[in-house]
Amino acid sequence: MNKEKIISDLKKLVGDENVSTYAEDLFVYSFDSYSIPFLDETIMKCRPDVVVKVKTTQQVSDVLRYANQWKIPVTPRAAGTSLAGGTIPIKGGIVLDLRIMNKIKKIDIENLQVIVEPGVIKAKLNEALKPYGFFFPPDPGSEEYCTIGGMIATNAGGMRAVKYGVTKDYVLGLEVVLPNGDVIRTGANTLKYSIGYDLAKLFVGSEGTLGVITEATLKIVPLPKHRAVALAQYRSFRDATKTVPHLIARALPSAIEFLDKYAIKAVNEWTKANIPEEVATLLIEVDGEKEDVRLRMNEVVKTCREFGAVNVQWSDDPNEMIKLWTARRDSGPALLRLRPEWAKMYGAEDVAVPLSKLPDAVEAFQKIGEKYGIFLACIGHAGDGNIHTSISIDVTRKEEQFLAIKRAFEEIHKVALELGGVVAGEHGIGLARKAYMEKQHGNALQVMKAIKQAIDPNNIMNPGKIFD
Amino acid sequence: MNKEKIISDLKKLVGDENVSTYAEDLFVYSFDSYSIPFLDETIMKCRPDVVVKVKTTQQVSDVLRYANQWKIPVTPRAAGTSLAGGTIPIKGGIVLDLRIMNKIKKIDIENLQVIVEPGVIKAKLNEALKPYGFFFPPDPGSEEYCTIGGMIATNAGGMRAVKYGVTKDYVLGLEVVLPNGDVIRTGANTLKYSIGYDLAKLFVGSEGTLGVITEATLKIVPLPKHRAVALAQYRSFRDATKTVPHLIARALPSAIEFLDKYAIKAVNEWTKANIPEEVATLLIEVDGEKEDVRLRMNEVVKTCREFGAVNVQWSDDPNEMIKLWTARRDSGPALLRLRPEWAKMYGAEDVAVPLSKLPDAVEAFQKIGEKYGIFLACIGHAGDGNIHTSISIDVTRKEEQFLAIKRAFEEIHKVALELGGVVAGEHGIGLARKAYMEKQHGNALQVMKAIKQAIDPNNIMNPGKIFD
Repeated sequence: MNKEKIISDLKKLVGDENVSTYAEDLFVYSFDSYSIPFLDETIMKCRPDVVVKVKTTQQVSDVLRYANQWKIPVTPRAAGTSLAGGTIPIKGGIVLDLRIMNKIKKIDIENLQVIVEPGVIKAKLNEALKPYGFFFPPDPGSEEYCTIGGMIATNAGGMRAVKYGVTKDYVLGLEVVLPNGDVIRTGANTLKYSIGYDLAKLFVGSEGTLGVITEATLKIVPLPKHRAVALAQYRSFRDATKTVPHLIARALPSAIEFLDKYAIKAVNEWTKANIPEEVATLLIEVDGEKEDVRLRMNEVVKTCREFGAVNVQWSDDPNEMIKLWTARRDSGPALLRLRPEWAKMYGAEDVAVPLSKLPDAVEAFQKIGEKYGIFLACIGHAGDGNIHTSISIDVTRKEEQFLAIKRAFEEIHKVALELGGVVAGEHGIGLARKAYMEKQHGNALQVMKAIKQAIDPNNIMNPGKIFD
Repeated sequence: MNKEKIISDLKKLVGDENVSTYAEDLFVYSFDSYSIPFLDETIMKCRPDVVVKVKTTQQVSDVLRYANQWKIPVTPRAAGTSLAGGTIPIKGGIVLDLRIMNKIKKIDIENLQVIVEPGVIKAKLNEALKPYGFFFPPDPGSEEYCTIGGMIATNAGGMRAVKYGVTKDYVLGLEVVLPNGDVIRTGANTLKYSIGYDLAKLFVGSEGTLGVITEATLKIVPLPKHRAVALAQYRSFRDATKTVPHLIARALPSAIEFLDKYAIKAVNEWTKANIPEEVATLLIEVDGEKEDVRLRMNEVVKTCREFGAVNVQWSDDPNEMIKLWTARRDSGPALLRLRPEWAKMYGAEDVAVPLSKLPDAVEAFQKIGEKYGIFLACIGHAGDGNIHTSISIDVTRKEEQFLAIKRAFEEIHKVALELGGVVAGEHGIGLARKAYMEKQHGNALQVMKAIKQAIDPNNIMNPGKIFD
């Protein structure tokens, strides 16, 4: 099939204005937040053949049916915030842009749910829910610009997963366009169901490899009325980690974040916040009714001290809370801009380990950083053992540092797997981690491939992601 | 392959003492809690060819590999509490009894998880967790005798799903023996993961049709320190239902149960409890810290009155709470033994609808009962729209009532689907509801069948359940 004919056919399906082959478009749709330009020349050079913007389920269906007929790869994409290269069109073909499918179709408080299109931005959904006193809890760092579709595709988490769970826990039902163009509805719009295989939950986290999500029915929960935040610092990571299950048992925090001393140092350099640069820092948030929050915060303080915290402060005053959150909130930009000649690299930034292995993991990762002479800081979600390493390289020593970083990534993943953990807690596999799928899953990988084959026999949906 | 040879081969795999072809065994393994003897003569007459008890993953693997080779049906079973006929061996073959795989392998408080075999009885797990101050929340009515394996197979729920969710929300990882005998590990032993297709969640609710669960890693949560219960009665079901989302928003109850006047009447006859026989009764439980529970209970009382409750009482005194729970707790036995000549029938006992449709559903179901001259009461989980109809027939008028009940079941399911609901909230599809799979799922059913075909091409695993 010739390319001109494909472009002209696609224009008939979605309108001329929604099909682009401009070099500029092909360029910007060739990468995402995974910093591939620095890492892999082959990926850096990949381009889609065409960008197609869709705004209805019917259009998605038409495009997929067409692509399936001619075996054209389709890479779904919205905000492009993937940290694993999930939206990079490595096999060319069509990039399907879902950003304009961004309607909040129904806010249904009576049934504790919302119905949204995939292009709705996470923060906008919560803005819309706020007047009703409800919210959709998963809160990835990119919530101001990431979309619900992408969150479902990667089973996104966030800081509050320790209390509120992850995206999967809120997906009740989905409308999905299958690779052959068929439109199915899966799950239900009831809060509970036991009606055969839970396809909705199978599509969650499938990273666009099984079909395109065109509508989601999401469970929503009441906004907490009050919050408080504590900062607790320890001379040992092991003490900090030991506190975590007890904090959960005694105070059910809505977030338990951690930072290592390198991250605190970066924050201090960036903000002049002057936070003591202890080995381990925890930030603990509690939410609920005002009086209850205070009672539980007292438990938090007592528990942290009991397990060896040397510096504990807390507040439920909004301004004071902002100060206490500084370390965590500003660690992202602080680590990104540590030195002008440094660039932050993604690839091994999302491992998770059983809680009890957190100190071993952090210690091992810090050693890996030293061994390869690369800057490596550990921050993340202590409540669910999810470690976001922040790794920067010196771009003036590009080639040498590339080699170092590739080896460091490999070692980090190896350590995570050896500690009984996973290579991705909430960012997905995409391109970045597909080499570890065999080690992660063993022969269960064959079952995944059998499912992929059953649903997408022509392998048109986001080919080359999760596995080859 | 001749039957004698199969029996003798199976004995070699699991030991003589674990293989039975005694008529008595074949009889007791031919039914479960779904009252099929009354309903369908063909099902009543079905028998397995052989009962095989297994106690290790290796034995399960050996038996499945053998069965797959000779295309022998395998029906996994533990406590046999299925209300949908999920463990009835309608195609004969092997019933695989997993009850003696009942070890709690690891209580891992540090990592907020337990590792169990499938035959562990739910209540025993919580007994074992109690000294640590933790529990596994899903709480089906049968929790004193049902097993974790069965709960996973059906995605069991219970009264506290409104706050704590269902079994699916607690399954982190599974060891599963596939139909071909391969042993896979799915999910993870971290609290969060995003590592490709979530096979663990696919096996949850698959009712033994994709493989045999031989080990589960389950998330556990801290036991609440305090509880309180309120009873609120209304002159209209619509008012009661309207209260529900507000109760959730204002007080996040751990249970919101409902009973209609027929259920209350039955409880009064059985217990002499003398509860006012109002149109709709809600029982609302709140749990948490003592002071917080009281504050939230005040919100509950205020909210119920605001939405028209005519009788509201609450208590956090243990003895008083037992009295308040009488209506719900004793409704089961009360409805079961209403008249000596009546028998309770399962089949349409588990529909769920969006919360806002609960009054329409209850009203429609009561009318269906009247239309067919059968006794029908509605109780259930108002917090998630799950209605357990209790339907009794007069066995002295057996044939005539059978016909009536079959039609009533059909109409109940039809109403549930028309109201945007599901035919099963927490009991599964099994045999009882497989006729509704097409209407429930439309063309998504083809995807389920494709997955079944991909994982179990010889259709040996629990054949004839969920779908044909």
